[in-house]
Amino acid sequence: MDTMLCAVLYGVRDVRVERFAAPNIQPDEVLVHVTRVGVCGSDVHYYTEGRIGDFVVDSPLVLGHEAAGVVVEVGSQVERVQPGDRVAIEPGYPCRKCFYCKAGRYNLCPDVTFMATPPVDGAFCEYVAWPQDFVFRLPESMTDDEGAMMEPLSVGLWAVERGGVRPGDAVAVFGSGPIGLLTLQAARAAGATTLIAVDVEDFRLEHARRLGATHTFNDRNGTALRQIRQVVGPLRGLPERYRGVDVAFETAGSLITTRNAVAAVRAGGVAVLVGLPPQSMVELDLVSAASREVDIRGMFRYANRYPPAIALTEAGRVDLASLVTHHFPLAEVEEALVFASEHKGEALKVMVDVAP
Amino acid sequence: MDTMLCAVLYGVRDVRVERFAAPNIQPDEVLVHVTRVGVCGSDVHYYTEGRIGDFVVDSPLVLGHEAAGVVVEVGSQVERVQPGDRVAIEPGYPCRKCFYCKAGRYNLCPDVTFMATPPVDGAFCEYVAWPQDFVFRLPESMTDDEGAMMEPLSVGLWAVERGGVRPGDAVAVFGSGPIGLLTLQAARAAGATTLIAVDVEDFRLEHARRLGATHTFNDRNGTALRQIRQVVGPLRGLPERYRGVDVAFETAGSLITTRNAVAAVRAGGVAVLVGLPPQSMVELDLVSAASREVDIRGMFRYANRYPPAIALTEAGRVDLASLVTHHFPLAEVEEALVFASEHKGEALKVMVDVAP
Amino acid sequence: MDTMLCAVLYGVRDVRVERFAAPNIQPDEVLVHVTRVGVCGSDVHYYTEGRIGDFVVDSPLVLGHEAAGVVVEVGSQVERVQPGDRVAIEPGYPCRKCFYCKAGRYNLCPDVTFMATPPVDGAFCEYVAWPQDFVFRLPESMTDDEGAMMEPLSVGLWAVERGGVRPGDAVAVFGSGPIGLLTLQAARAAGATTLIAVDVEDFRLEHARRLGATHTFNDRNGTALRQIRQVVGPLRGLPERYRGVDVAFETAGSLITTRNAVAAVRAGGVAVLVGLPPQSMVELDLVSAASREVDIRGMFRYANRYPPAIALTEAGRVDLASLVTHHFPLAEVEEALVFASEHKGEALKVMVDVAP
Amino acid sequence: MDTMLCAVLYGVRDVRVERFAAPNIQPDEVLVHVTRVGVCGSDVHYYTEGRIGDFVVDSPLVLGHEAAGVVVEVGSQVERVQPGDRVAIEPGYPCRKCFYCKAGRYNLCPDVTFMATPPVDGAFCEYVAWPQDFVFRLPESMTDDEGAMMEPLSVGLWAVERGGVRPGDAVAVFGSGPIGLLTLQAARAAGATTLIAVDVEDFRLEHARRLGATHTFNDRNGTALRQIRQVVGPLRGLPERYRGVDVAFETAGSLITTRNAVAAVRAGGVAVLVGLPPQSMVELDLVSAASREVDIRGMFRYANRYPPAIALTEAGRVDLASLVTHHFPLAEVEEALVFASEHKGEALKVMVDVAP
Repeated sequence: MDTMLCAVLYGVRDVRVERFAAPNIQPDEVLVHVTRVGVCGSDVHYYTEGRIGDFVVDSPLVLGHEAAGVVVEVGSQVERVQPGDRVAIEPGYPCRKCFYCKAGRYNLCPDVTFMATPPVDGAFCEYVAWPQDFVFRLPESMTDDEGAMMEPLSVGLWAVERGGVRPGDAVAVFGSGPIGLLTLQAARAAGATTLIAVDVEDFRLEHARRLGATHTFNDRNGTALRQIRQVVGPLRGLPERYRGVDVAFETAGSLITTRNAVAAVRAGGVAVLVGLPPQSMVELDLVSAASREVDIRGMFRYANRYPPAIALTEAGRVDLASLVTHHFPLAEVEEALVFASEHKGEALKVMVDVAP
Repeated sequence: MDTMLCAVLYGVRDVRVERFAAPNIQPDEVLVHVTRVGVCGSDVHYYTEGRIGDFVVDSPLVLGHEAAGVVVEVGSQVERVQPGDRVAIEPGYPCRKCFYCKAGRYNLCPDVTFMATPPVDGAFCEYVAWPQDFVFRLPESMTDDEGAMMEPLSVGLWAVERGGVRPGDAVAVFGSGPIGLLTLQAARAAGATTLIAVDVEDFRLEHARRLGATHTFNDRNGTALRQIRQVVGPLRGLPERYRGVDVAFETAGSLITTRNAVAAVRAGGVAVLVGLPPQSMVELDLVSAASREVDIRGMFRYANRYPPAIALTEAGRVDLASLVTHHFPLAEVEEALVFASEHKGEALKVMVDVAP
Repeated sequence: MDTMLCAVLYGVRDVRVERFAAPNIQPDEVLVHVTRVGVCGSDVHYYTEGRIGDFVVDSPLVLGHEAAGVVVEVGSQVERVQPGDRVAIEPGYPCRKCFYCKAGRYNLCPDVTFMATPPVDGAFCEYVAWPQDFVFRLPESMTDDEGAMMEPLSVGLWAVERGGVRPGDAVAVFGSGPIGLLTLQAARAAGATTLIAVDVEDFRLEHARRLGATHTFNDRNGTALRQIRQVVGPLRGLPERYRGVDVAFETAGSLITTRNAVAAVRAGGVAVLVGLPPQSMVELDLVSAASREVDIRGMFRYANRYPPAIALTEAGRVDLASLVTHHFPLAEVEEALVFASEHKGEALKVMVDVAP
Repeated sequence: MDTMLCAVLYGVRDVRVERFAAPNIQPDEVLVHVTRVGVCGSDVHYYTEGRIGDFVVDSPLVLGHEAAGVVVEVGSQVERVQPGDRVAIEPGYPCRKCFYCKAGRYNLCPDVTFMATPPVDGAFCEYVAWPQDFVFRLPESMTDDEGAMMEPLSVGLWAVERGGVRPGDAVAVFGSGPIGLLTLQAARAAGATTLIAVDVEDFRLEHARRLGATHTFNDRNGTALRQIRQVVGPLRGLPERYRGVDVAFETAGSLITTRNAVAAVRAGGVAVLVGLPPQSMVELDLVSAASREVDIRGMFRYANRYPPAIALTEAGRVDLASLVTHHFPLAEVEEALVFASEHKGEALKVMVDVAP
């Protein structure tokens, strides 16, 4: 554990695997031997663009923040985990002292330390030192791949929390990439029974159907909104203007899906913006939404979702394994990033096997 | 439809099946040809005791309030259902005008008309006239037995609503009779993953396990509370005093289960009293509950739970069919009541087939 | 009570006061001798434009929906009020049977009967027949003017309810017309302590300050947003990007105030759209809002707000009297509408005295 | 600042004022020169009994946890306050890492460090070292007495938070000691308009009336419950069984007031147990409460209430000054404890002036 290999982003489309000193741990930290790290859209974005909004990669940065591994060393104050424990790593830990941390919304903490967000290094490394309360022991039945998937599943669970999904609800999920498919499954786990998936790739909609979508609509021709209203029309015995799902989730990050998600909601329901359109200024029919008391709620990461993510996975309520479509070794992180960027019609979750 | 047979309770253990004039419908009512009516514990109680608390059977009363049937006639203002529709009947309709009705808590309406509660007749009859907005069309995939079970399932769903169950929660359900088993399934449908059933009959605990309980404890020797704490101990990494389930449900209606349900909850969790102990004055460790911010919440029937009950059943999230253990024809309502009262170790839901 | 005078809108800028047959009451209705009716912006809009969005005045319509009066006759089923009672009239009553009514959100009922919204006549009449549960007895200490103001105060209270204002909160109210000033007072009554009013008319800001605003900003030069952040900056000890009010209310109905209201909210706070911009498609910085978990919530009228409106007024927690700046008799309804439309810099609430 | 005087409890009724080394501060701590410390009932209880429940004073302990003072030194990481700032000290800081801390309910943290609770020393000392995020700067308009009162006011605000008080609510507060009077004022600040105070001492009820109670009932003859129902009877137009306040608060810590608080709540309302009866096993009419959906909620201290407490005080929404009835210097802490224990009919808040 003296040295370790890391994959470092030096600039746009420039990743090098190099050897570094392994990190030292603080008294309340653990050292995790990383085994699996999922490739996230944000990793791909930093790789191809060198920035996401105001976050600019202006010095070498290790990417990767969806990580699982094995604890190999623990600090003197660590009580919850011990060497040998397999764990999922929650990639951001907050300041613990600000207004948001004290109120339980630590995802809004201004001083969060979040992996793979400049200037904080991520998990495409053999070892990571991390606070004990942001690593979570995995049950034996869970694989390391599933452990790495706790991160995007937490996003889906936070979306469902923000949306206030209740048993028997009708929901629509715009976008059937990994986040969309996990949000769909999270909504199903929370009791939603009408589960509508919308995408423009049949490949992804097939996954959605396999994972529990009761209706899948390919919106290539812009018919999804009408189709949604037809599905949910009879549900409440309401006139046209009032028809819609209880909760809609936008996960595709486009202008049209943002508008559609808001429009797809019944009066009094909720639209959750999980993704974000590329431009910050968005034009949408706010008057219709506001006058129907449709709440528009965004989200930023998640808080306290790893424990339920693990519980739901262990209980078999979500299927994560089938979302992992490709594997690359640590030495080929760059190939993984390129592949994830160029094969969206074929890849769902691309996994980097840091250790075998 | 001029006349109909009804089973009428004339006094303690005195039920007679007699012929009456069929009811006329109001403009916003439908006439339902009843097919199935489940026997509820309250029916048995009225039959054997002639009263429940302040509600006394002092004139002939038709029992039964868990009913499904077929619409045979609709009033002039009825739009939602039509003759031929198979429906579940929500057995209580409120005044629609009081403080509670206008606030969406119509189950607390002081002027509710509730079947089989003196002096309102119930559904052990061939025909029932009922407001259109308190009958709910059944999808083709659902049986009439399942339709009749919408009533107790609504109780379970209301318990889960009152308890605020969230995905990944650990819950304990005290009592594994029909209401307990439906509450267990409702909690599972809402995402609870640790599902602990407690009863004193192994027969019932076997049903609980089959229906999704992850742990079943026979409390004949008073060990359940300790066993629950052992199960949930490691869940949050908390010391002894803080260990417990997120939500506990009391469905057995006894003093000991009431105390245990409150004691089984972790600090900051919720105990839902679905059942009620026989005596109104209850002695319990209120100081421990209050100083740990354990909320104690009772419930009275349910509000707005038929639509999700139907949705969850249609989606296969709950198993109702296997809870129906016995059938009796309308002519043998009294035998059904006697059987339900005397074979608790063997019967779960006893169903009266009003029509074949 | 055989006939009555009403002011009828026959077309754009064409109001005629004519005599009609007085209405008959149903068994659960009361006949109210109207005394005061406030002029609302929507009345002015119908008068000057003949329509509001999809609602078109294509046959004669009585305007006015902020009414108080005296009960002069009650139906056979009426128990809550009696002849002689002074009452405020809640101007919309719902179907009582749909999904929304049963859930306590009757303001979203698709079949609501709402005064002065085509084709339902309003209250610029000597008599109105109305359901007993939508008239509310006024305490002796309240004037009829205040009774008529229960309607716009209910809007302010609903805004505060939607916004989730809590004791000690910092709020900003954009727009200091009657709705803005009532929202400000409602927020104050709910415990908000930092109360920022924004308008472009000093006249109105003076009223805001008198009614409890702790800060007033004239936004003529577009400096309000910066000023708000300076005020609330030190409140939470947070960096720039996180500064903002807990809840912002848009009541001016313009594009710029809509954008400002959303931008003025701290991460995790709420923007309530009480007003609506003139165009339905609105361009705003949705990415900033969503990624800071700022909820955007519209509203449509209100539900169950008359009782607290009366209670707060009786308790002296709000000042309504000083908002009534002008009075006109029923014969001069048209003058009142013209005045309200043309003297916004001078008039707050214009009141029509239907009876002396 | 090398040494300081502290009042130490050595055993039952044995307090000695002695000189100790002044504390050193950690990098994120501040050193506060204490000026005022209120005497709380728990201080008196430790003094006269040597224990509260499982907390036993078995080694010397400094009492006092309602403190204000002046910052005289700050650690290297401290940014929020600086030497010279007058501050209120929140007396408990949590572990920041457990399930409860991360969820925003840090008052339930099992590892909280709370002043004057064995074995943690309190604030009857000239100097206290404390984390910067649990001291709160006082505005100039507030006195040190008021600063010390932020602690019990936080209790009142937490009670109101737990009770979910809304504008226009009717509340009853059982007990008019300092906590009762502060809960009453907190409920008023949150918008409650019918404010009923119940006590057995006219002296205290006079304070209640002065501080905003709309009704005061001396329950010496056990008539308060009936009187409450008479007051709130007409409020909702409901029959007898449904009459009650929206929220009741028990602050007296007796069996009878606990029962009365639960019984005084309308169906669907909330009873908040702020105080706790002396015995842990409590017999009460749980069946009535549960079957009327009256929630019973306890509380343990408070979370995140200092900022609103300060905001409300600065805004003049609560009157704290008049609750401070007596002052003692640090040298006479024992006299203060004796006085508070023996003059309940005359003293409200007894304040120790640690510095002039």
